[in-house]
Amino acid sequence: MGEIVFVGLGLHDDVGISLRGLDEVKSADTVFAELYTSLLPGFSLEKFEKTCGRRVNMMSRADLEEGNAQAIVKAAENHKAVLLVPGDPLIATTHISLRIEAEKHGIRTRIVHGASILSAAIGLSGLHNYKFGKSVTIPFPDETSSETPYSVISQNKKLGLHTLCLLDIKVESGRFLNIHDALNEFLRLEAERKERVITEETLVVGIARAGSDDPTVRAGFIRDMLNFDFGGPPYSLIFPGELHFMEIEALTVLAGAPEGLERASK
Amino acid sequence: MGEIVFVGLGLHDDVGISLRGLDEVKSADTVFAELYTSLLPGFSLEKFEKTCGRRVNMMSRADLEEGNAQAIVKAAENHKAVLLVPGDPLIATTHISLRIEAEKHGIRTRIVHGASILSAAIGLSGLHNYKFGKSVTIPFPDETSSETPYSVISQNKKLGLHTLCLLDIKVESGRFLNIHDALNEFLRLEAERKERVITEETLVVGIARAGSDDPTVRAGFIRDMLNFDFGGPPYSLIFPGELHFMEIEALTVLAGAPEGLERASK
Repeated sequence: MGEIVFVGLGLHDDVGISLRGLDEVKSADTVFAELYTSLLPGFSLEKFEKTCGRRVNMMSRADLEEGNAQAIVKAAENHKAVLLVPGDPLIATTHISLRIEAEKHGIRTRIVHGASILSAAIGLSGLHNYKFGKSVTIPFPDETSSETPYSVISQNKKLGLHTLCLLDIKVESGRFLNIHDALNEFLRLEAERKERVITEETLVVGIARAGSDDPTVRAGFIRDMLNFDFGGPPYSLIFPGELHFMEIEALTVLAGAPEGLERASK
Repeated sequence: MGEIVFVGLGLHDDVGISLRGLDEVKSADTVFAELYTSLLPGFSLEKFEKTCGRRVNMMSRADLEEGNAQAIVKAAENHKAVLLVPGDPLIATTHISLRIEAEKHGIRTRIVHGASILSAAIGLSGLHNYKFGKSVTIPFPDETSSETPYSVISQNKKLGLHTLCLLDIKVESGRFLNIHDALNEFLRLEAERKERVITEETLVVGIARAGSDDPTVRAGFIRDMLNFDFGGPPYSLIFPGELHFMEIEALTVLAGAPEGLERASK
């Protein structure tokens, strides 16, 4: 019986994979990878192939989503196929579909987890994990309105909870929603809706390049964050809800938050 | 200037660390580890020390929490210290405190992320990440009531959201809250409160040994899950909110959920 092993590449580059994941790659009959569901800015295919001693078949979005990933299912029929995926591999819904399809074909599936932006962004911020509500992706403003993220942030804030927002990316075309544009779109929406959920005085934490050697993590009011230079992508934003005093200290010491957060967090 | 690098060990054993993490260990002046904030059932210190070629100083809860981790701060004053931590390292609040203390002493801190149960449990369940609300830890019933988890699940359900629950562990004394006892305590609370939040007909997803080669992932109604054998720890539970049809298919194909979930999820 064949199998597909979904192996997480973790964050940022070609050394985010776990030792267990590398062993799975080395013992696979065929190795596939997709690099479009998240951006790994430092990933070198050449370096990765050298590390694992295997040739890697790159899969495009079209291969995996439109072609229903037949190549992978076929390769796994009586053999072991590995699919390398950025982050933790089954967070992207497209891979859940592939996994279900494979299992229905009698192909065994396994997961080798990797570091995910979901826990990495929380860890980098110094905020407490159990105080995060629902998370959300912020779309490109020229494609979709940010009504949904605005509502999610609003609902979480009412419950005193933090919101993790992932900023949309189009890896294939090299487009990355940046923090400036995401915040501006929220202010535009606020001007329309006037609900006082996201204003220039709202505290946010911006995170860039989580998992790299030089991530940028910066907390501040939107009026100041609009012009802060976060460097290269990918980007996340956290909208804090109610802050514990230890979280205020973390934002101040670790993320350069301004004085006076005790008052701002009320 | 010295530095502390917090390196995530990922899940389950000694091969969950990333290649980047292993490099940090190899180039450290001193290597510390704590293995009490999460359970890594397959971790062998001997094997890990062989892999990295370094001696690892094991830190107890008392070393890190009561002694304020002076040994690590001291080792990092003019050198590079690595602290190995299960999962993604800055999810445990105790390490946020250490990080703040170190930065206040002028010691640089960095994070090498690892796979976390937060994303792993979501990925294993086949449920959609952006539909999870606040998560919660379920305490031992003989120590603390499960009032808080009950309320968190109730609030999330009202919003249609899923709840990830981590079951408490005491690694030092080898005590692990199991799924049977956690569910029983919820039913006891339900009998008191009569809010119809968690009954024998409630759908749950139980997860054991995430990150291992043989995790158990099983979806079913509480009446059936009470006697299901999940094998060894650690354990997580997911209380689903509203289910998308793709999530129902995932629970059915990947987690053995019973027929008729479309009705049960209403």
